[in-house]
Amino acid sequence: MRDCIFCKISNGDIPSHKVYEDDFVFAFLDISPATKGHTLVIPKKHVTDIFDMNSETAKEVFSVIPKISNAIKKAFNPIGLNIVSNNQKPYQEVFHYHIHLVPRYENDGYVISAETKEFIHDELNIIKELIVKKL
Amino acid sequence: MRDCIFCKISNGDIPSHKVYEDDFVFAFLDISPATKGHTLVIPKKHVTDIFDMNSETAKEVFSVIPKISNAIKKAFNPIGLNIVSNNQKPYQEVFHYHIHLVPRYENDGYVISAETKEFIHDELNIIKELIVKKL
Repeated sequence: MRDCIFCKISNGDIPSHKVYEDDFVFAFLDISPATKGHTLVIPKKHVTDIFDMNSETAKEVFSVIPKISNAIKKAFNPIGLNIVSNNQKPYQEVFHYHIHLVPRYENDGYVISAETKEFIHDELNIIKELIVKKL
Repeated sequence: MRDCIFCKISNGDIPSHKVYEDDFVFAFLDISPATKGHTLVIPKKHVTDIFDMNSETAKEVFSVIPKISNAIKKAFNPIGLNIVSNNQKPYQEVFHYHIHLVPRYENDGYVISAETKEFIHDELNIIKELIVKKL
């Protein structure tokens, strides 16, 4: 897609620190890394976000995530890895679908936190039904 | 796997608020939801984390993520959706691979934050090479 920075990266118009490439997927280092080895994995096909993605593209992108995750683990021996994809608000900044692979180290400053709600069985049943109806 | 709570949920031994099921994948509401509609998607096959997963299982699990994400969007009209998978430390609590689908609302208290590092081109080239060597 014209004027999409991640399309330009995956077709080579903009240089990147490329980690992996196949016919469908491109992976490269985040230039503003949260931690050492922070990698972005994208479909070559322009897809805005998870809502815009079909099942086939989802398979292609995710099929390489275990392989790249293991390479990062072997390279840097992190204590773990967070896999994150931000779709629309509040965090998506580039509107070409991408998955962050964020290797974790002690005291690395990367935080995911939630104000978890109390478990209310009846409410969850209603929520569940609302989702199932839209599948 | 014996004594795995998510194996017991996916085979029906423990009840859950089931959202979706096929031959390979099971999705259900998180009972400690970060936000309304917070859903977990798991492979039925016991896999500890992303490092323990093969490409085929990754495809099976991720193939349904767009469909479930869109159902959540239609049901609740969130401002966005974060897709998160925590592997090993510091966040993984259940050692059966799972993907969190966290629909986002204004001021919902869910936060992902990083202390991003300065971009150093030479250092990123070295990091890239270390990963590529392990692929």
